[in-house]
Amino acid sequence: MLPTTNQQAANMNMAPDVFFKTADMWYRSFRNSTIYGQLRIIAAVLFGFVVLFFLLGGGGGGGGSAPQTGSHYMQHRGVEDRASEGLMEATEILQSRNPPSVSTPLPSMLYIVALVALGGLAFAAWLAAWVLGKDEGDEKMKQVSDAIREGASGFLSTQYASIFKLAVVVLVGIFLMYLVREPPKNLPQVASSRLALCVAVSFATGCVLSGIAGYVGMWVAVRSNVRVASAACRSFQEAIAVGLRAGAFSGVLVVSMVLLGIIALLFGVRLVVPAALHQLPFLLVGYGFGASFVALFAQLGGGIYTKAADVGADMVGKVEADIPEDDPRNPAVIADLVGDNVGDCAGRGADLFESIAGEILAAMILGGSLSQQLPADARSGYVLFPLAIHAMDIVVSGIGIMMTEAPQTRGIKAIDPMEVLKSGYKVSVGLAAVGIIVLCRLLLHTEEHPAAWMHFSVCGLVGLGTAFLFILVTQYYTDFNFPPVRQIAQASLTGHGTNVIAGMSVGMQATAAPAAIISVALLCSYKTGMAALGGTASAGLFGTAVATMGMLSTVVFVLAMDVFGPITDNAGGIVEMSEQPESVRNITDSLDAVGNTTKAITKGFSVGSASLACFLLFSAFLDEVSELAGQRIDAVDISVPEVFLGGIAGATLVFYFSGQCMTAVGSAAQEVVNNVRTQFRERPGIMDGSQKPDYASCVTIVTKAALREMVAPGIVATTVPLCVGFFFRLASSGNDRLIGAKAIASFLMFATSTGVLFAIFLNTAGGAWDNAKKYIEQGVHGGKGSAAHKAAVTGDTVGDPSKDTAGPSLHVLIKLLSTITLVCSPLFVA
Amino acid sequence: MLPTTNQQAANMNMAPDVFFKTADMWYRSFRNSTIYGQLRIIAAVLFGFVVLFFLLGGGGGGGGSAPQTGSHYMQHRGVEDRASEGLMEATEILQSRNPPSVSTPLPSMLYIVALVALGGLAFAAWLAAWVLGKDEGDEKMKQVSDAIREGASGFLSTQYASIFKLAVVVLVGIFLMYLVREPPKNLPQVASSRLALCVAVSFATGCVLSGIAGYVGMWVAVRSNVRVASAACRSFQEAIAVGLRAGAFSGVLVVSMVLLGIIALLFGVRLVVPAALHQLPFLLVGYGFGASFVALFAQLGGGIYTKAADVGADMVGKVEADIPEDDPRNPAVIADLVGDNVGDCAGRGADLFESIAGEILAAMILGGSLSQQLPADARSGYVLFPLAIHAMDIVVSGIGIMMTEAPQTRGIKAIDPMEVLKSGYKVSVGLAAVGIIVLCRLLLHTEEHPAAWMHFSVCGLVGLGTAFLFILVTQYYTDFNFPPVRQIAQASLTGHGTNVIAGMSVGMQATAAPAAIISVALLCSYKTGMAALGGTASAGLFGTAVATMGMLSTVVFVLAMDVFGPITDNAGGIVEMSEQPESVRNITDSLDAVGNTTKAITKGFSVGSASLACFLLFSAFLDEVSELAGQRIDAVDISVPEVFLGGIAGATLVFYFSGQCMTAVGSAAQEVVNNVRTQFRERPGIMDGSQKPDYASCVTIVTKAALREMVAPGIVATTVPLCVGFFFRLASSGNDRLIGAKAIASFLMFATSTGVLFAIFLNTAGGAWDNAKKYIEQGVHGGKGSAAHKAAVTGDTVGDPSKDTAGPSLHVLIKLLSTITLVCSPLFVA
Repeated sequence: MLPTTNQQAANMNMAPDVFFKTADMWYRSFRNSTIYGQLRIIAAVLFGFVVLFFLLGGGGGGGGSAPQTGSHYMQHRGVEDRASEGLMEATEILQSRNPPSVSTPLPSMLYIVALVALGGLAFAAWLAAWVLGKDEGDEKMKQVSDAIREGASGFLSTQYASIFKLAVVVLVGIFLMYLVREPPKNLPQVASSRLALCVAVSFATGCVLSGIAGYVGMWVAVRSNVRVASAACRSFQEAIAVGLRAGAFSGVLVVSMVLLGIIALLFGVRLVVPAALHQLPFLLVGYGFGASFVALFAQLGGGIYTKAADVGADMVGKVEADIPEDDPRNPAVIADLVGDNVGDCAGRGADLFESIAGEILAAMILGGSLSQQLPADARSGYVLFPLAIHAMDIVVSGIGIMMTEAPQTRGIKAIDPMEVLKSGYKVSVGLAAVGIIVLCRLLLHTEEHPAAWMHFSVCGLVGLGTAFLFILVTQYYTDFNFPPVRQIAQASLTGHGTNVIAGMSVGMQATAAPAAIISVALLCSYKTGMAALGGTASAGLFGTAVATMGMLSTVVFVLAMDVFGPITDNAGGIVEMSEQPESVRNITDSLDAVGNTTKAITKGFSVGSASLACFLLFSAFLDEVSELAGQRIDAVDISVPEVFLGGIAGATLVFYFSGQCMTAVGSAAQEVVNNVRTQFRERPGIMDGSQKPDYASCVTIVTKAALREMVAPGIVATTVPLCVGFFFRLASSGNDRLIGAKAIASFLMFATSTGVLFAIFLNTAGGAWDNAKKYIEQGVHGGKGSAAHKAAVTGDTVGDPSKDTAGPSLHVLIKLLSTITLVCSPLFVA
Repeated sequence: MLPTTNQQAANMNMAPDVFFKTADMWYRSFRNSTIYGQLRIIAAVLFGFVVLFFLLGGGGGGGGSAPQTGSHYMQHRGVEDRASEGLMEATEILQSRNPPSVSTPLPSMLYIVALVALGGLAFAAWLAAWVLGKDEGDEKMKQVSDAIREGASGFLSTQYASIFKLAVVVLVGIFLMYLVREPPKNLPQVASSRLALCVAVSFATGCVLSGIAGYVGMWVAVRSNVRVASAACRSFQEAIAVGLRAGAFSGVLVVSMVLLGIIALLFGVRLVVPAALHQLPFLLVGYGFGASFVALFAQLGGGIYTKAADVGADMVGKVEADIPEDDPRNPAVIADLVGDNVGDCAGRGADLFESIAGEILAAMILGGSLSQQLPADARSGYVLFPLAIHAMDIVVSGIGIMMTEAPQTRGIKAIDPMEVLKSGYKVSVGLAAVGIIVLCRLLLHTEEHPAAWMHFSVCGLVGLGTAFLFILVTQYYTDFNFPPVRQIAQASLTGHGTNVIAGMSVGMQATAAPAAIISVALLCSYKTGMAALGGTASAGLFGTAVATMGMLSTVVFVLAMDVFGPITDNAGGIVEMSEQPESVRNITDSLDAVGNTTKAITKGFSVGSASLACFLLFSAFLDEVSELAGQRIDAVDISVPEVFLGGIAGATLVFYFSGQCMTAVGSAAQEVVNNVRTQFRERPGIMDGSQKPDYASCVTIVTKAALREMVAPGIVATTVPLCVGFFFRLASSGNDRLIGAKAIASFLMFATSTGVLFAIFLNTAGGAWDNAKKYIEQGVHGGKGSAAHKAAVTGDTVGDPSKDTAGPSLHVLIKLLSTITLVCSPLFVA
C-alpha cells in the first residue's frame, strides 16, 4: 500500500477502515467541544517546549562530548585584512596537518533530531492514512481519478528509470574523480578510496531519498484528489481539511527524510572516514548534489509535461473550440490533470527536498568553520543548529496544520479559504519565532560572547520576516486586487500583443522589490552576525545562514499549502469531468483559486530562500576549496578577466537554460495541439458528446515529449559549470592554481543573481498573466469568450511554461550549480 | 539650410543645384569607363597610406614632444601579487605628489587627427549636398514626406527641449559635486573650481554634440527618404546609392564630431588645468557622460515613439482591419513613418556617438596608465591611439562607401542589395585590417619591446574578427533562411501562444554564442596584450582596448548601413502612400528587407562592442577611483557582501529598466489603438477611401506619450547607480573607505553582463519574430491573412518594443552607467 520507509506506518495502514474511522469519529466529536480550542493551544506550546528541552540536553551534552582540541585554527575571510593574511593562513593550515582527535562520539543531540524526524514520518503516515480513509466518491469520479493515477505513475516510473541511468553515470564519474585525486589537505589521514566512497554513498542517498520524496508525494496526491472531490460533495470544510492534510503529508515527509538522510550519513561516514564533527559536513556535499540532480530532472520532466499538456489543451480548447477549462470533451484534459501531479506535486517535492538538503549542508559547513574559533563546549551547537531548526519546523508546522480548520458554523460564501489557511500559518509562524529564539539561546550561547545568541536570534527573525515580505510582494504582483494584474487585463482589450507586452513588463519590474528585500536582509543578517562574535566575517556568514534557516523554519507548512494547490486543482477537474452539480463545482472552484495563490506564494518563498541561501552556498564553496587546496581563496576579484568571464558564462547559462525549457514546452505543446485538432476533425461527435475523445493518445504524446525534452537542458545544466571551471583552470597556464575555482565561484554568483532575477521575472509574469485571465473571466472587460479574454488566454499560455517550467527549473538549477561545484571542486584546483 | 557646425559645408550648400548637378553628371559619365574601377582601388590604397604617413609623423613627433619625467610610476593591477602591493603602491602615489611637468605642448599628431576629422565633416557635407541635389519626386510624394518631416522635427524639438532642461540640472549637480570635493590625489596642484569647470564644460560639449549628431541625422534622413522613393521610380541602382550615402552622412558626421569634440577639449582643458597628457583623459570623462545622457533620452524617447506608433498601427491595421503595412487608410501610418526617423535615425545617431566617445575615452585612460611604464618617447602614441584608429575609420569607411555601387548592367531580379552593401563593406574591412597593423606599428612600437606592436595588431584583428562573427551569429538567429526563425514560423501554425513562446526561447538561447565569442575575444586580446609588454596586467587591459578599437574600426560604414534601413523603410512607406506603380514598390520592398537585416546586424555589432568595451570602461573606472583616492582598489571581491549586493542591484536595474521601457511602449500603443479604432468607427468612409483619416491626431498622441514615458526610465537609470554607491559608502561604517567604489564597480559589471545578455535576448527575439512574420508573408504556412500570419503579427508586436525600445536603450544604459560612475566617482569614496 503506502510505500513509506517506516514500519509503523505500514502497520497502521493494515486496517485503516476500522481504526481510523473510529479515531476520526472520536476526534470530530471532541473538537466540537469548547474546551478543545484552548486545550490545543496549551498542548501546542507545551509540546514545543518539551521538544526544545530535549534539544537543549542534546545541544549542551553534545557540545561537551566533542572536545575538539586540534590546532586546526582557521581565521575566516576578513573583509579588511584578508589579503595580507592569505599567505600566513595557508602556511598555518599546512602546518596543522596532525589529524584532529576524531574518536569522540557524535553529540547526543543528533539522536533527538532523529527522533523528531522519525516522529515526523509517523505523523506523515497518520496524515496519509487519515486522507486515504476518506470516501473515494462515485463511480464516475473513480474512473477519472483512475485515469489520472495511471498516467501519473506511468510517467513517473519511466522518468525515474531515465534519471536512474543518468545518476549511475554521474555516480561513477564522481567516484573516479575522487579516487584519482590526492586526499584533501585538511584530511591527509584519509585514503582517497574512502573519501570517494563517502561522496558516492552520499550522492546515492541524496538521489534515492529525493526520488522517494517526489514519488510518494505524487502517490498520495493522485489518491487524495478524488477524495477532495468527494468531500466537496459533502462539505466545504471537509474538502479543505482533506486537501491540506494531503499536502501536509508531502511537507512533513520531505523534511523528515532530509533530516534522517543527513543523520544517517553523519553516522555512516564516521565509520569510514575518521573526521571531527566540523569536518563531516564537507563529506556530505554529495547528498545535496544527489538531491539536486534528481530534482532537476524531476522538475524539468514534470514541468514540461504539465505545461505542454496545459498549453495544448488551452490553445485548442479555450481559444479555438470555445469550451471551458477541464471540459470532458477536450482530449488533452486528462493529460493536463496528470501534469498537475507529476509537475507540481512530484516536481515541487523533489525541488524542496534538495533546497532544504543543500541549505542545511551549507549552513553546517559555515557553522563548522565558525565553531573552530569558539570554545570546545560550544562547537557542536553551531554545527547542528540547522538540523535542530528543521526538527522544530516539523513540530511547529505540524501543530499549525492540525489547528487549521474552517469554521463549521458558516456557509461557503462566508468563508475565505485563504483566510483559513492563513490562520493556521500564523500559528506556525508564531511558534517558529519563539522556537528560533529558544534554539539560538540553547545552541548558540557561549560564555565568551554572552550576547551572541541574541544577535543570531535577530538574524533568524529577519529571515522569518523576509519570508513574510516576499509573500506580500508576490501577492501584490500576481493578485488581481492590485494594479499590476489589472493593467494586464486592461491591455488585453487592445489585443494579444499588448497583453503579452504588459505581462512581460510587469514581470521585469517585479524583480526590483524582491531584490531590494533580499539585499537588505542579507546585509542586516551579515552585519548582525558579525557583531555577534566581535566582528569576524565568518560570524557574519553564519548570521546569513541563521537568517536562511529562519526563512525556511516554516517550510513544512508552506509546502503543504503548495501541494494543496494541484490537489484541489485536480479535484476541480474530476468534479468537472464527472459532471457533478453546480454547488460542488463552486466549492472546488473556490479552493482552486486559493491553490493558485498558494502556488504563486510558494514560488516567491522558494526564490527568496534560494537567493538568501546563494551567498551561503557560495561561501561554503570557498571554504571547501580552501580546505581541499590547503590555500585560502583570498578574493573572488571580478577585475581579473578569467573571473569575470566565468561570471558571464554563469549568467549566460541562465538565459540559455531557460530558453531550452521554453522550447521544450513549446514543441511538446505543438504536438498536443496537432493531436487535439486531429481528434476534433476525425471524431466530429466529440463536441456534442456522441463520441468519446481519445485521452490516452494525448497522455502518450506528452509523456514521450517530456522525457525526450528534459534531457538536453539537464545535461547542459550539469556539464557547463564543470567545463567552464576546468577550462579556466587550464587556460590560466599555471599563474594561479586557484584561478579555476575563482572563475567558477564567480560563475556561481552571476548565475545565482541572474537566475534569481530571471526566475522572479518568469514566475511573476506567468502568475500575473494567469490571474489577469481569471480577472477577465469574472466578467470584467467583456468576460469569457470576448476578444479581451482570448488575448488574455494567449498571455496565460505564454506564462504557463514561464511560471511552471522555466521558473521553477531555475530554482533547482541555482542550487544544483552550488552543489555540483561543491562536489566537483577537485576538478577546478590545479 | 544644413545645420552643420562647419562653414565649408554651408558654403558648398549655397548653390547645390548648379554645382552638384554638374559634378554628378561628370562623375556618372566617368564611372562608366573601364579604367574607373582600377583607379579607384589604387586611389583608395594610396589615400590610406598617405593618411597613415601623416599619422606616423604625428605619432612619432608627438611622442618625442611629451617627455613625461615625473616620478609618478604606477604598477597596474597584477593578477597574482596585487594584494601585497596595494599598500606599497598607495604610499608611492602619495609620495609622488610633485606635479608632473605639464608645460610641454600636446603632440602634433592631434592636429593630423583633427585635420582628418575636419575632412570628414567636409565629406559629410558633400554627401548631404549630393543627396539633397536629387529629385524630390512628384507632388503626392512630397505631401507625404512633408508630413513626416513636420512630425519628426516637431517631436525632436520638443524632445531636445526636455532633455536640455534635465541636462542643465545634471550639469549644475556635477559642477557643485566637484566644487565641494577636495582636489584628487593625483592632481593636487589643481583647484577644485578649475576641475569642476573642466568636467562641466566636457559634459556640456558631450551633450550638445550628441544632440547635434542625432538631430542632423534625422534632418538629412527625412529629406532623403523622399529622394530614395523618387530614385526608385527611375532605377534600382540609384535608389541604393542615395540611401547609402544618406546613411553615410550620419556615420561620417558622428565619428568626425566625436573626434573634434575630444581634440577641442584636450586643448581647452590644458588652458584651465595644468596636467600631463596621460592625465587629460580623466578630465574629459564628462564628455562621455554628457553624450550618454543625451543618447539615453534620445533613444528612449525615439524608441518609445517609433514602437508605440508601429504597434498601434499593426494591431488595428493588420490584425483587425486586414489592411497592409503602410496603407494610407491607416490613421497611424504617418506616426509610424515619423517614428522610423526619430527612433532609428536620431536615436541610433546619438547612441553611436556616445558609444564611440565612451570607448575612446576609456581606451585613452588605459593607454595613459600603461604609458607610464614606457619610455618617454613612446608614451603619446599609446594615449592617442584610439583617436588615430577612428580617424582611419573615416578614411577607410569613406572609401568603402564611395566604392559601393550596384552593377549598372543587370536588372533588379539579378541584384541582391545585401550583396552590394557587403561588397563595399568588405573593402572597408580589408583596408581597416591593413590600417590597424600600420597604426600599431607606428604608434605602439617601442625599442624596449620590439614585438609589442605585433601583439597589439593581433588584438586589433581579433576585434575586427569578433565584429564579423557577431554579424554572422545575428544573421543566423534573425534571418529566415536559418532554422530558428523557421521554428517560430512553424509555431505560429498552432496559435498566438506558441509563436510567442518560440520567439522568447529563440531569444534566450541566442545569448550563448555571442557570450562565448565575446569571452574568447576578451581572453585572447587580454592574454596577447599581456604578452606584449612582459606580462603586466595593464598591458592586457590595453590589449582589450585595442580589440575594441578593432571592432569599431569600421563603425562609419556600419552606421551608414544602419541608417540606410529606416530611410529605405520610409521610402517604401512614401511609395505605398503615394500609390506608385507595382514596379517601384518592388524596388523599395527589396531595399526595405535589406534594411531590416542591416538594422539587426548593427544591433549585434553595437552589443558586441558594448560588451567588449565594458571591461575597458570598468578598468577605467578602477583607475579613476584609484587616482582620485590616492589608494589602489586591490580587488573587486564579490565574496564581500556589500560588493555582491552592489552587483545584484546592477543586475536588477537592467530588469527593471527594461520593464519600464516595455510598459512605456505598451501604454502608449494602447492609446494609439484606441484612437485608430475611434477613427475607424467615427469615419466609416476611411476604409473605402471616401474619407481621409486624421493622421495628425495620432502623431500628437504618440509625441505626447513618448515625451511623458521617457522620463521615468531615464531618471531611474541615472539616479540608481548614484544611490547604490552612496548607500554602500555610508553603510560600510568606515571599515573600508573604498567600499562604495567597489560596490559600484561590481554594480557596473553585473549590470553590464546582465544588460548585454538581456539586450541580446530582446533584440534577437524581436528580430526573429519580425522575420518569421515576413517569412509567412512570403506565402509559407498560409501566407498573409491566415491564422498563422495573425499569430506571427502578435509575435512581431511583442518583438517591436523588445528590439527597438528596450534592447537599444539597454545598450545606452550600459555605457551610461560606465560614464556616470566615472564622473561621479568622488561620491563613492569616503
